[in-house]
Amino acid sequence: MSLMEHFKSIFYPESVAVIGASNSMDKWGAGVFSSVLRTSNIKKLYPVNNKTPEVMGVKTYPSILDIPGPVDFAAIVVPYNYVLGIVKECVAKGVKGALVITAGLGETGAEGARLQKEIVDTARAGGMRFVGPNCMGHFNTANSFSTARGGGETLRKGNVGVISQSGGFAAHILQIGAEMGVGFSKFVSTGNEADLHFEDFFEYYAQDKDTKVITAYIEGLREGPRFFDIARKITKTKPVVIVKVGRTNAGTRAAKSHTAAIAGSDHVYDAMFKQAGIIRVDDVEELFDVASGLLHIPMPRGKRVGILTFGGGFGCVTADASERLGLEVAQLSPHTIEALNKILPERWPHANPVDTVGYGDVTYPCLWPMLEDDNIDSVIVIGGLANMGMRRRREKLTKDAFQDQDDPSSMFGMTLDMMKAREEKEKQNLAKLYEYMRKYKKPVLTFDRHVEHMKDEPLYKELQENGIMIYPTPERAARVLARLSEYSRYVQSK
Amino acid sequence: MSLMEHFKSIFYPESVAVIGASNSMDKWGAGVFSSVLRTSNIKKLYPVNNKTPEVMGVKTYPSILDIPGPVDFAAIVVPYNYVLGIVKECVAKGVKGALVITAGLGETGAEGARLQKEIVDTARAGGMRFVGPNCMGHFNTANSFSTARGGGETLRKGNVGVISQSGGFAAHILQIGAEMGVGFSKFVSTGNEADLHFEDFFEYYAQDKDTKVITAYIEGLREGPRFFDIARKITKTKPVVIVKVGRTNAGTRAAKSHTAAIAGSDHVYDAMFKQAGIIRVDDVEELFDVASGLLHIPMPRGKRVGILTFGGGFGCVTADASERLGLEVAQLSPHTIEALNKILPERWPHANPVDTVGYGDVTYPCLWPMLEDDNIDSVIVIGGLANMGMRRRREKLTKDAFQDQDDPSSMFGMTLDMMKAREEKEKQNLAKLYEYMRKYKKPVLTFDRHVEHMKDEPLYKELQENGIMIYPTPERAARVLARLSEYSRYVQSK
Repeated sequence: MSLMEHFKSIFYPESVAVIGASNSMDKWGAGVFSSVLRTSNIKKLYPVNNKTPEVMGVKTYPSILDIPGPVDFAAIVVPYNYVLGIVKECVAKGVKGALVITAGLGETGAEGARLQKEIVDTARAGGMRFVGPNCMGHFNTANSFSTARGGGETLRKGNVGVISQSGGFAAHILQIGAEMGVGFSKFVSTGNEADLHFEDFFEYYAQDKDTKVITAYIEGLREGPRFFDIARKITKTKPVVIVKVGRTNAGTRAAKSHTAAIAGSDHVYDAMFKQAGIIRVDDVEELFDVASGLLHIPMPRGKRVGILTFGGGFGCVTADASERLGLEVAQLSPHTIEALNKILPERWPHANPVDTVGYGDVTYPCLWPMLEDDNIDSVIVIGGLANMGMRRRREKLTKDAFQDQDDPSSMFGMTLDMMKAREEKEKQNLAKLYEYMRKYKKPVLTFDRHVEHMKDEPLYKELQENGIMIYPTPERAARVLARLSEYSRYVQSK
Repeated sequence: MSLMEHFKSIFYPESVAVIGASNSMDKWGAGVFSSVLRTSNIKKLYPVNNKTPEVMGVKTYPSILDIPGPVDFAAIVVPYNYVLGIVKECVAKGVKGALVITAGLGETGAEGARLQKEIVDTARAGGMRFVGPNCMGHFNTANSFSTARGGGETLRKGNVGVISQSGGFAAHILQIGAEMGVGFSKFVSTGNEADLHFEDFFEYYAQDKDTKVITAYIEGLREGPRFFDIARKITKTKPVVIVKVGRTNAGTRAAKSHTAAIAGSDHVYDAMFKQAGIIRVDDVEELFDVASGLLHIPMPRGKRVGILTFGGGFGCVTADASERLGLEVAQLSPHTIEALNKILPERWPHANPVDTVGYGDVTYPCLWPMLEDDNIDSVIVIGGLANMGMRRRREKLTKDAFQDQDDPSSMFGMTLDMMKAREEKEKQNLAKLYEYMRKYKKPVLTFDRHVEHMKDEPLYKELQENGIMIYPTPERAARVLARLSEYSRYVQSK
């Protein structure tokens, strides 16, 4: 049976046994069973427990061997000294894929390692492959199947795959991703990697159609060269974004004592990542900012960024962040300066960042020549795009001080007809912007502090579908663009 | 009249005129007047407008000269070509302090600069000092007085003073601070600094009792040596935290074109900041993380951090971040290792980070020897402190899956009595922790992803009052601690 077929049992099982399922919510066996029960559409779901007739209303079986019909996948949540016996039963039952939550094995010392090895040998000899032990579960949003405790809120379907070498930190990763609105394809906490290694999951995600960006938390790899080979083959078409600890001596020491993996020199990892086109990031927020950017933003051809801002301070901060993170603040072509001279008052700085010095509603007119400029590969727009500030202000004022006013529009000195005309104009501008982005293949990133509250708005989705992402700080926009530019350079060089 | 007396008129006026007050919400004159009206307890508030008999229900005066009785402070929100005439009237009225919102003066070129100079000369000759022009207002929470548009939500009283050289970016700064729960003392957007300079506000904040930490956004200083002198005198007792743009060439160029200030070499600034004990930070989030830390967390004596974690991944990430940011991951003393051996199972890593390898409820027992250890100056605790995870899980479970259950406590296999006993134990542990922190003078920082939702809880406030701050990522805890350690080293060297 091929590795990919084993993975099919693990991620797309038709029948699932949870061995150690429990009603006591302080036990893992309850959390795991509850996850499978609540989130999945697995029809053949069997709790295995020899002490109680039912778990959460579902009939139990004393042993997996008592289950009528086949079982594709087993989640094992029993004390460590029972695992070997359970694995033997799974093999006897013909289970092809399993996941062992149980801790207390390889990570505890020589005795645990010996027992763990026996478990691996037994499973492999019996044609079963497994995740873990000492892991936090996995999930697949394609069939809403999850063994991760409390995974419900993180099961938002999408195209970001996650592989984590730490269990506890994986929960943190998923939590942050969910808060950021990221949609996931598959997730796995690899645990001790006694049988299946990080590299196996990596290879599986590499060919998984639902996973368009692979993200990972790495402490140390067991099969570096294999990882490198897979990465070199796929990063050009399927980007890989990684948080790897061990940048410092203290981090490396901690990783060594945490995972049995050879942590290796961070410099070697760093060089390997660069050569393979892997995007290395510093923290989880950046991990998902970049992953989402890769999914939605068109690739910039180079690192020369144009900055369009309604205020000088934002221009300074954005320019500073851009250069610090590896972008180049573009030099405007004479033609662009000429075009902007016709729009902006004499006091505009005549350089990039293009500061509209608070001069009326000129964002779009200024944006067109910038997108046409051959010296510019991408544009960060601070303010004025998609009328977002206006919408927010209107909403806020309507709620706040002037809720007793009959016609909220009058507070802007505008009639409803004027507002409608303005919105019509905005639609036309956006249509032109989408067309320009397609024509010139230049990403446009923008900033709105309140983006968290906008993510369910149709406008946000429209912008995202057309390649425009919104960030709550200008620094985050610059950071994503810097990573994308670097990745784009790699892809172009291949 | 001394500078400080002028500042008294600006921040603590008894009577205020808003010249250019308006009912049209799309005009600055409406926003500013509405702010003063809504937020302040200034009893003598006069809108000045010669075209309408009342603004927002308050009787107007055609000119400031028509106001009966004295006026301490004037906010000027009229088109640029009227400012000089208005300033003459203010002087005639005996106004001692003013703030000019109006743009279109010094920042627009030679002609505007000439007019601006005449305005400054007129004001100074008449005994009036002013903020701006081209600024976004100011506020003082001591008397709830604000000229900043829409400043209501940011007027949370506290001890952080803000001085910003950018207006638009200042709104962003205040917004982020408000979201982070920061309490402010005073705020000012300095604008063109035609009359009052950054250094004047700095000197004023230096002696202001409500301001315990000074934060600032700087593009370029007009009086570097004076700034340096003030800073050297105060930073030892009143810390100063600064975001300064111009780290890169692009940022410096942008700052030069935005403010008339001499931006100067960033290296010179950096050296000056270091010599004067100023804490330089990279972005606004860090600005307020550090400012809040300075207000609440006891100063660490050195940079050797102990890390106590329930999971290895968090330990790696925290160790990595700590060293990268300038802390040192402490070496445990043999005595501490011995003490921890008695608490933790054999497989614990026997080193810092102290990973409790998921072994029960041992956070406090492990924390005591770490706080006693002379090799450790501070501790970051990941999980287990103040029972936060438990509280959250209980709340979540109670809401989610098990809301139909009669006794929510039973889901943990605990009776209510057991839970009460547990909470009593927690109280005792916290009391001991506060005592330890006082005795050993070592800060304890902790992590909870959900801290944003905890800020109104009594527990959060209790922890904060006792010097324990909670951060939503381990990296942010490490960053604050790194800045505090550096500052502490400076203070000790003086």
